[in-house]
Amino acid sequence: MLQIVLASLCLAAPAPDAGVLTSARVLEESSPSDWRHVDPSNTLYLDLPGGRVVIELAAGFAPSHVENIRTLAREHYFDDLAILRSQDNYVAQWGDPNADDRANAGDRAHAKSLGSARAKLPAEFSRPSQGLAFTKLSDGDVYTREVGWADGFPVGRDPRTGQIWIAHCYGIVGAGRNNPADSSNGAELYVVTGHSPRHLDRNITTVGRVLRGMELLSSLPRGTGALGFYEKTQQRVPLKRVTLASAISAADRTEWEALRTDTPTFQRWVEARRNRREPWFVYPVGHVELCNVPLPVREVRFQKK
Amino acid sequence: MLQIVLASLCLAAPAPDAGVLTSARVLEESSPSDWRHVDPSNTLYLDLPGGRVVIELAAGFAPSHVENIRTLAREHYFDDLAILRSQDNYVAQWGDPNADDRANAGDRAHAKSLGSARAKLPAEFSRPSQGLAFTKLSDGDVYTREVGWADGFPVGRDPRTGQIWIAHCYGIVGAGRNNPADSSNGAELYVVTGHSPRHLDRNITTVGRVLRGMELLSSLPRGTGALGFYEKTQQRVPLKRVTLASAISAADRTEWEALRTDTPTFQRWVEARRNRREPWFVYPVGHVELCNVPLPVREVRFQKK
Repeated sequence: MLQIVLASLCLAAPAPDAGVLTSARVLEESSPSDWRHVDPSNTLYLDLPGGRVVIELAAGFAPSHVENIRTLAREHYFDDLAILRSQDNYVAQWGDPNADDRANAGDRAHAKSLGSARAKLPAEFSRPSQGLAFTKLSDGDVYTREVGWADGFPVGRDPRTGQIWIAHCYGIVGAGRNNPADSSNGAELYVVTGHSPRHLDRNITTVGRVLRGMELLSSLPRGTGALGFYEKTQQRVPLKRVTLASAISAADRTEWEALRTDTPTFQRWVEARRNRREPWFVYPVGHVELCNVPLPVREVRFQKK
Repeated sequence: MLQIVLASLCLAAPAPDAGVLTSARVLEESSPSDWRHVDPSNTLYLDLPGGRVVIELAAGFAPSHVENIRTLAREHYFDDLAILRSQDNYVAQWGDPNADDRANAGDRAHAKSLGSARAKLPAEFSRPSQGLAFTKLSDGDVYTREVGWADGFPVGRDPRTGQIWIAHCYGIVGAGRNNPADSSNGAELYVVTGHSPRHLDRNITTVGRVLRGMELLSSLPRGTGALGFYEKTQQRVPLKRVTLASAISAADRTEWEALRTDTPTFQRWVEARRNRREPWFVYPVGHVELCNVPLPVREVRFQKK
């Protein structure tokens, strides 16, 4: 039997009065079809000493990077590598501390082998928006013409170019790169841990978002080196194991559902965030910024007989 | 002799090419008059086990709250209280764990005495904007008519009402309250540690911003109780000492300068953040959001003979 457990709301909210639209009420009144199952082949577990981080990979936005990350995870590339950098109000980043050595020293490098993953990928900064359901945020945006949600991710969209891209909101995961646009391959990843650095949009390939365990990444001690790199090897936080959920037996993995972003329920969710009707608010605001709309997630638990 | 030390830039930036406007270049080319001295009577030190947090109090925006905070600090109210709450992507909050007991039990409460500080203050959500130099951000804002900077703080402004208020950007400090608008008195303070919760603007009294040591607050373990409260007493982070800089002899205190927000240099600073000319950027962006403009600070060191 499938038993849905609401693992937690994004923000605790007081009980709504009858008839008042609050985010708590929207979730209570949601139906099973308002939720989508997160594909285990797009679900990446990062096992840190403090617990598990769950990431949803954005296969539709960065197909080459996601395929490479799947290969890297399958071949245990990330296992025993580390979080190398935590820069306050910006990002935490993980990968191989010797990765840059590859470019400099070629085969003589100390960099960990990428195995059968590709060393070079095309930049995937944006994709055509055609055919992709887009829920537009009516409040607009400072950075671009249109923002909203597509395929479960916060996005920007430009009707002039027909392109769409993931917006760098808190918890978004991307592929670190050097100066050349196509210098990322998914072996070095970062997550946004501060005020959403939207100036990175269309400047780097985004590959997913954190569904659970964000606090394990956001509360890391900040590195004291340039760009928040840890200056001492022992300050780095080890990645014990990085696995795709699909590589684990169904009985042992956790599965997740995310609130669909292409439904009337989601529009109500956004509306409840635009106009805050909880008793604490004196002024209901009447607007919301893209990255201030949390994207609800819940764990699916299979009840064992 | 007064020796200015640039303690750190807000973000490391590569060396600018000649003629290219980057934020690093703007600071290099700034003159002493582009900086303002932060008044020691508006400078609050929070001494945590991990180090010192320096806060600039916004006396112009919340005079009653700031005066009360000064009284509380002078009378050592905060010493040996604790950080009670750290909610991911939102706020950390400190004060007296028994404060709510006062409202419920009156004189029989276990709450710490407020000494000669006032228990009740008016709400100070906004102030008249008249007479206050305002540097407007040309990119606009999702939440309100006008945003920019005034008196060193990021602000929203409404020309219809003539009001101005501090915007809840990362690192802004406010006075916690219960449901009544006037239920804060400065004895319970919070700091924004996640994506800027601008829906709090004009819903609560802001009292300052963190100048230094933000990473000590943002990297705190998140509390596992509702709203991120620590569930066990021993998880709370003790406030060893909370002092006004003006209460410490000049020889022993650190002094700070902040980049003025009402100068042509500051406008160049904003422009360098709007259009990113560092070599890493493929797409220079052309816009910036209010809370993505860091406000530079530097330590002033008095050279001892």
